[in-house]
Amino acid sequence: MVALIQSKDRIGLVADISGIMARAKLNIVSLREHVDKVENRFYIRIETENETEPVALEQEIRKVLPDDALIAINPRPEKKIVVMVTKEYHCLADILVRHQFKTLGATVQCVIGNHAVLQDICDRFGVPFHFVSHEGVSKDALESAIRAHIDACEPDYIVLAKFMRILSPAFVAAYPMRIINIHHSFLPAFAGAHPYRQAFERGVKLIGATSHFVTNELDEGPIIAQQVIPVNHSYTAGDMMKAGQEIETSVLARALRLVFSDRVFVYRNKTVVFE
Amino acid sequence: MVALIQSKDRIGLVADISGIMARAKLNIVSLREHVDKVENRFYIRIETENETEPVALEQEIRKVLPDDALIAINPRPEKKIVVMVTKEYHCLADILVRHQFKTLGATVQCVIGNHAVLQDICDRFGVPFHFVSHEGVSKDALESAIRAHIDACEPDYIVLAKFMRILSPAFVAAYPMRIINIHHSFLPAFAGAHPYRQAFERGVKLIGATSHFVTNELDEGPIIAQQVIPVNHSYTAGDMMKAGQEIETSVLARALRLVFSDRVFVYRNKTVVFE
Amino acid sequence: MVALIQSKDRIGLVADISGIMARAKLNIVSLREHVDKVENRFYIRIETENETEPVALEQEIRKVLPDDALIAINPRPEKKIVVMVTKEYHCLADILVRHQFKTLGATVQCVIGNHAVLQDICDRFGVPFHFVSHEGVSKDALESAIRAHIDACEPDYIVLAKFMRILSPAFVAAYPMRIINIHHSFLPAFAGAHPYRQAFERGVKLIGATSHFVTNELDEGPIIAQQVIPVNHSYTAGDMMKAGQEIETSVLARALRLVFSDRVFVYRNKTVVFE
Amino acid sequence: MVALIQSKDRIGLVADISGIMARAKLNIVSLREHVDKVENRFYIRIETENETEPVALEQEIRKVLPDDALIAINPRPEKKIVVMVTKEYHCLADILVRHQFKTLGATVQCVIGNHAVLQDICDRFGVPFHFVSHEGVSKDALESAIRAHIDACEPDYIVLAKFMRILSPAFVAAYPMRIINIHHSFLPAFAGAHPYRQAFERGVKLIGATSHFVTNELDEGPIIAQQVIPVNHSYTAGDMMKAGQEIETSVLARALRLVFSDRVFVYRNKTVVFE
Repeated sequence: MVALIQSKDRIGLVADISGIMARAKLNIVSLREHVDKVENRFYIRIETENETEPVALEQEIRKVLPDDALIAINPRPEKKIVVMVTKEYHCLADILVRHQFKTLGATVQCVIGNHAVLQDICDRFGVPFHFVSHEGVSKDALESAIRAHIDACEPDYIVLAKFMRILSPAFVAAYPMRIINIHHSFLPAFAGAHPYRQAFERGVKLIGATSHFVTNELDEGPIIAQQVIPVNHSYTAGDMMKAGQEIETSVLARALRLVFSDRVFVYRNKTVVFE
Repeated sequence: MVALIQSKDRIGLVADISGIMARAKLNIVSLREHVDKVENRFYIRIETENETEPVALEQEIRKVLPDDALIAINPRPEKKIVVMVTKEYHCLADILVRHQFKTLGATVQCVIGNHAVLQDICDRFGVPFHFVSHEGVSKDALESAIRAHIDACEPDYIVLAKFMRILSPAFVAAYPMRIINIHHSFLPAFAGAHPYRQAFERGVKLIGATSHFVTNELDEGPIIAQQVIPVNHSYTAGDMMKAGQEIETSVLARALRLVFSDRVFVYRNKTVVFE
Repeated sequence: MVALIQSKDRIGLVADISGIMARAKLNIVSLREHVDKVENRFYIRIETENETEPVALEQEIRKVLPDDALIAINPRPEKKIVVMVTKEYHCLADILVRHQFKTLGATVQCVIGNHAVLQDICDRFGVPFHFVSHEGVSKDALESAIRAHIDACEPDYIVLAKFMRILSPAFVAAYPMRIINIHHSFLPAFAGAHPYRQAFERGVKLIGATSHFVTNELDEGPIIAQQVIPVNHSYTAGDMMKAGQEIETSVLARALRLVFSDRVFVYRNKTVVFE
Repeated sequence: MVALIQSKDRIGLVADISGIMARAKLNIVSLREHVDKVENRFYIRIETENETEPVALEQEIRKVLPDDALIAINPRPEKKIVVMVTKEYHCLADILVRHQFKTLGATVQCVIGNHAVLQDICDRFGVPFHFVSHEGVSKDALESAIRAHIDACEPDYIVLAKFMRILSPAFVAAYPMRIINIHHSFLPAFAGAHPYRQAFERGVKLIGATSHFVTNELDEGPIIAQQVIPVNHSYTAGDMMKAGQEIETSVLARALRLVFSDRVFVYRNKTVVFE
């Protein structure tokens, strides 16, 4: 069993929660707790060896917690996701391969692209691809079409695997903390477009990538994972982009693994990640 | 307050321990728990915001734990250490600098060398240096002399900062899991002497170092920390040794930080490290 | 144009080679040279901005070089490869994706498996898969069948992407320094079978992988690339294997990129890699 | 012998330079050449096994090069440096230890501090410390006092080892591309003051540091080296600063090793680093 709980902090929360679990004969094999003293916020993740009836357990736990508590007992072990793309294949292909071999921790319900070039790779894996062009339609109309496809799938998460258009506040608000993006830079350096061109011109010695939840401040949502790789003077801006694609693939895979294994809490603009 | 506890596992340990803490009005700000299912062994580390009387707390906790429990409440925050060296300066100098600026988490009581060359750097930091030559004396006599210096200091830990002689079983047994070594290789590769020569001849692309507790099996004690750095064809065996010294310094510093901040448990031949 | 040359060393080799290139009006944009003083061996890799007639250039260069020189002018830019597998998908899938999107630097001629489970993923990418079972046949017969498939493809390289059977000396001798393996450990630690079980039992804090050319000494051929990732006490042997698969995929991709972009020289049991 | 040359690019430069060396019976053991096609700029670094008369060699080489060529034959092997500090000890202590054990590749002529707290550590290593307070004096007067101490030492480089005041354009212009700074962030993220506070508030998962030559654009000079370390939600801003100090020490040590071993070229706002 896995339980994730966050709430305001007070003395005795661990004792109250673990006491309920002990009475339910649950053997805790892994526990991580953290209190953010700046926010006075309590986070706990508990893995038990054995199982119990989750609804009853949640009710018991809710009784002892502050009113604002968020509780998830045995979140869906295999998430449902929708992937959104533009033209670049690298993150999508990595996701499709893991989906195919059942090592993603999620099943890809469908892929939505504002270009058609990635239809082929989806076809090869038997995953539905919806081409929703942004050309000649309003942003509203585009997003309505996308949302129709998303909502038909009832996904847990929407993964922006190099989707290169900015989503409206209304769109983002429809899926709060459920949209995961991979940003092609080590944020907050080089926010915005053309980060590899910027990195080349600045002569940096490391290239990075950042995976984060999407909020309405561009490239500013809660960070899940970041990584870098070394580059040097011999890299053109194009070489930096290629190296960046490797690290983008790796960071997004890592962020998805953390989220899909129920190790990530979000509160305000930060994450708590119990790896 | 910091509490470290390990024992045989059973259902309800977290609830029992955290219940005692809640009744003592202790607010837990960080908790890490792990159960090793292979060994059926329970490990927990708890940090609280506030303090209580540690002896009474330990007595309360001991009542609810299996007989084999090891409990440490508020281990000495500033450890006392003795450092043993041969000729190489890099790890010792790093330790002395941190000692001097009070960022080591420990105070160096004295340094013992089987060569005299590092007397000078100890003098510069006002740390006693004892030269105990291995020449012309039996191993027993050498170790007796060393142990006299150590025991006069009553250290929590003995740090082998590139001490290049093998210690006898009797010596090791006198300080169980209290001797920390830095080994100049990524164990278990290149165990034994001359690892850089071996690494050069094998043409490896990474050089590593390992910090571990010392047991009577050479280079086989519980590993605390390991790190590597890239090397390439342009490195001579000497260059590899220089690169290795950088990583040795870094790994030992990291292992000491983990041990001195009470984050490392040892059981049989493994560690549990709550970073 | 790209030129790779190795030979015995002597004074004036750079001048002689670059003189010939200057007279051919070739503008050198990148040059790496290394002399291995232990072996008295000269290695040079030259990239020019412009092109010339390669056969004539090679003849000119050969005249000024020692007799043992190995010269490659404009090696085939898109290599032809055969991939050999057993049951694990992760390295193969990564290669197939890059092949599909033409970012591998090579085309996969066919895949040969001693189990049939990876037939499906090859079919999805339209790459021929040959199932050559090891059951009920002699090693000789098995290898003859494999070699027939390989030789029909005339590949530049054979990639063992988690092929879990040991090849005979005769097989290895048929493709000298053209077989690239990914070994599931940071060699020379944990050579042989079950490295993740060994790593788990030793309690290591890093897991590695090694890509190397295959010679007749098991897990002892010239190393091309190595990488590690951190692990800790919470990893079971199975978790270590999963983490290891990530790093195996990454290391093999990196080794192939280096080899396919003509950056790797081999001499005796070592490589010179001009990244 | 070591030669570093940069100039406008043209066909035949490698041949001309290496031809002169061959006629001087110099055996090249390591050569790195790079052409920046955007700037049409040629960079070469040559190491030879044997020596020749450097002034005559430089004259020969200058004859065949474009007028704007910068040539350094056998730059001073042991650089002279001045270190400037404020209050933080970590980078300075690392430099002093390497200076003491003659592994810095440079000798520290003196240390200049705008606070007096680091006098003691300099005294311990017998290195002159000059306290030049910024209080109650004009910036002009402060910098005049600093420059007097610097100029008395005739250093090759000035190392800002956590010197926390901004230098005037006149000061920077007096030592062009000879002032090396360590910036407490992964530039260009978090330029300016309080980067660890910014990093904490942004919830980043990596903390970095950047070493660069100082120009008149704050935190914008040519980057020599960058590195990062992982952090997580459990780090306070203070913990991030401590982790940052470790990486600052490491990055500055690496940048100094590269510069002092004559591996770094500067042109406009970028470096070419032949590691």
